[in-house]
Amino acid sequence: MDSRNGSVSETPLDAEIGSFFDSAPPLKDCDGIAKKLKDFIEFNSPPPGKGSPTGVVCVTSGGTTVPLEQCCVRYIDNFSSGHRGATSTEYFIKAGYAVIFLYRRGTFQPYCRSLPEDSLLECFECSDDSAIQVRQPYAEAVKRAISDHHAAVAGGHLLKIPFTTIFEYLQILRSIAMSMRDLGSHAVYYLAAAVSDFYVPWKSMAEHKIQSASGPLDMRLVQVPKMLSALKKAWAPMAFCISFKLETDSKILLEKAEMALKKYRMHMVVANELSTRKEEVTVVTGNEKILVCRDKTQSDSDVEEPLIELIVGRHSAYVKDSDL
Amino acid sequence: MDSRNGSVSETPLDAEIGSFFDSAPPLKDCDGIAKKLKDFIEFNSPPPGKGSPTGVVCVTSGGTTVPLEQCCVRYIDNFSSGHRGATSTEYFIKAGYAVIFLYRRGTFQPYCRSLPEDSLLECFECSDDSAIQVRQPYAEAVKRAISDHHAAVAGGHLLKIPFTTIFEYLQILRSIAMSMRDLGSHAVYYLAAAVSDFYVPWKSMAEHKIQSASGPLDMRLVQVPKMLSALKKAWAPMAFCISFKLETDSKILLEKAEMALKKYRMHMVVANELSTRKEEVTVVTGNEKILVCRDKTQSDSDVEEPLIELIVGRHSAYVKDSDL
Repeated sequence: MDSRNGSVSETPLDAEIGSFFDSAPPLKDCDGIAKKLKDFIEFNSPPPGKGSPTGVVCVTSGGTTVPLEQCCVRYIDNFSSGHRGATSTEYFIKAGYAVIFLYRRGTFQPYCRSLPEDSLLECFECSDDSAIQVRQPYAEAVKRAISDHHAAVAGGHLLKIPFTTIFEYLQILRSIAMSMRDLGSHAVYYLAAAVSDFYVPWKSMAEHKIQSASGPLDMRLVQVPKMLSALKKAWAPMAFCISFKLETDSKILLEKAEMALKKYRMHMVVANELSTRKEEVTVVTGNEKILVCRDKTQSDSDVEEPLIELIVGRHSAYVKDSDL
Repeated sequence: MDSRNGSVSETPLDAEIGSFFDSAPPLKDCDGIAKKLKDFIEFNSPPPGKGSPTGVVCVTSGGTTVPLEQCCVRYIDNFSSGHRGATSTEYFIKAGYAVIFLYRRGTFQPYCRSLPEDSLLECFECSDDSAIQVRQPYAEAVKRAISDHHAAVAGGHLLKIPFTTIFEYLQILRSIAMSMRDLGSHAVYYLAAAVSDFYVPWKSMAEHKIQSASGPLDMRLVQVPKMLSALKKAWAPMAFCISFKLETDSKILLEKAEMALKKYRMHMVVANELSTRKEEVTVVTGNEKILVCRDKTQSDSDVEEPLIELIVGRHSAYVKDSDL
């Protein structure tokens, strides 16, 4: 379309995004997810004339996979335990927000991060009369996990939606954005998931398992379209958006975070380095760089506690400004 | 070395394997793992003159990862839930074997396969007096998981060792082979893990996260040396070895299984196709192709039950032959 005729012209990015979604394998249970989202947003929307709730946050968590074969045996994965997303979800709910937790299958879940791996086998034992009981060192952690998690879900404050591939992740994120649209400035995106930068387009993918018989494997991966642009410009123009930048090389971290802030017009970018990410992060905004550290006088403190406090403060100010 | 002087000449494969291990990042807690293996094998070895136990099986399970960066953010993964390895472990223990379960972190565990994902949150609830209790539909499955698993570990029949990368997997497998050497024909390898065919040698790997700014990503992966050859020829020459061949294309499956049987001198290759692998497998031996199916008159039967029965029979015959 031609912008001289008053219509919006399609940019190269729009075309790239369109072609990504057109060629993606269809999402399973698409209608079921849309229904759950609709109910959750309705439950957490303000009744007319009764003022506004704090808001709804979409927290994304864990890494996406990129299949290398359609009958997927091999895939490229992004490392992410999901600890940041799970922990932040707890603090958002504590601050009065409702959370849509879009998480990679098998990663950390809210309220469960102090449990050991293999929690069922580690935390429980069978007593002599063959009753199942919690082993003593884990009693408090298990009780907290089960009761707090249940309270959040049963109270309608937490909706969990799992994904595995980049195709699932981006299709569900778009659905969430559509559902949250009417929330305007009360919608928050906290994009902590580690999203693949590169993928193999579905149509150019090998149908069957790649054979290993003949020498080295050469692969060409193309860039995933920058969906943050689409989110901010088209899907959720009024929402408060926080993205993450993870690097292992501290020398380029802040520079790259600032670039992301400008390029995708985020409200905040949380810059974290792989080795220190549980101790401190730097929040980059339009005119500040704020170092946020966990309370080191407490052994069980989280950097997410002051981080979410900072975000909640900024988001409240943003809502007030938008309401003027 | 020159074979004319009576010493064994180094083949190209030996050189490849040597260079793989030399360049691999060192295994964490190498001594701790060796100690656990030593104790487990000692406990499960026959006292002198008292005849032999059934044997010790090394079951490998789940997929290995191949890091693409040294500070690992991205990696290539092989799909494998670990269901085959976990289920087979239960049947081997039931048949009187001790099992070293070498498994990918986060995959299915023995005795836990009928539990839902997120089992802790799904299977338990907090009662009104804030005691933790099992939710009714899961009562039997949870009790079985905890008591059978505990019995196997406490009884000294099950040793679990986790891995993530191909480097960890192959280093631990070699340690296991060294520990099991004295068991001779009583040692069984049941290699159900989905091991990467390709990897990026540690030394040619990017140190930091690969940047996405500049166009498509071209990668060259080289073949992982065929360790099955090393296992059979050098590490465990007397052991009874079963490997797996998974394909998504049934047309090439049996042919590839036969090739693997001959090339690596396995005793059996279990051929399975991705879509039907829980229903049936074909066991390829030197002169047979045996179709093994689960008992379809029982809804909760496993193809691993007749499969392990077949293997146990063949292994017993092999032990008798070796003892002659």
